[in-house]
Amino acid sequence: MTSFPPPLSGSAQDETAELRPRFDDNGLVAAIAQDAVTGEVLMLAWMNAEALEKTIETGRATYWSRSRGALWIKGETSGHTQDVVEIRVDCDQDAILLKVRQTGGACHTHRESCFYRRVEDGALSFTDKPD
Amino acid sequence: MTSFPPPLSGSAQDETAELRPRFDDNGLVAAIAQDAVTGEVLMLAWMNAEALEKTIETGRATYWSRSRGALWIKGETSGHTQDVVEIRVDCDQDAILLKVRQTGGACHTHRESCFYRRVEDGALSFTDKPD
Repeated sequence: MTSFPPPLSGSAQDETAELRPRFDDNGLVAAIAQDAVTGEVLMLAWMNAEALEKTIETGRATYWSRSRGALWIKGETSGHTQDVVEIRVDCDQDAILLKVRQTGGACHTHRESCFYRRVEDGALSFTDKPD
Repeated sequence: MTSFPPPLSGSAQDETAELRPRFDDNGLVAAIAQDAVTGEVLMLAWMNAEALEKTIETGRATYWSRSRGALWIKGETSGHTQDVVEIRVDCDQDAILLKVRQTGGACHTHRESCFYRRVEDGALSFTDKPD
């Protein structure tokens, strides 16, 4: 169950002061987690309406795991939680930006960020090692 | 036509030094644009294989416009181009992070970033005005 009203049309959606997430055909919006202190982009995940509601209510980043098909309170198993400092939405409200205080590594590979490889000369170079 | 090899299974995908984007059922990966200087997250868009190839080849951020169903060289019409400083991929390679030098506003609403509204007390507060 969701309490969010539906998206508006055209530019009204860009300028509304109401939270009207535009969920995709799978009921999801993309969610970017950014370290509130360093500005580093940590990960990209997905939220359904329930995950977004829980994130707002609890102040703990909560996603929808597409692989498990279940709500995913970040760090519930690993301890690598994300305390939400700020939540932003983009112009058409189909993407969320969380500014978080990250405990431990954000990535399941035990790295700080999921974006630990740089595209270089057609291959990938590693910028971080697992802790 | 794409020249990218397919994703690997499990953790091999996380640790490969090969660029093996995991495109979704629509042939897309999510792409985050981040200001290379300020660290501000500017926008979230989508890339198909061709958009990713063009971005790598040209050093100009190129996306796939889902609404127009066409390749979208960022700033081609508006002049608000994104020069790519660095391209990163996430662990399972279904998301791209572009660090860019942004000319003009990244958002079609003439704001610096698309993430100009903060979720606050169940509503949205604006953090930026159109230029």
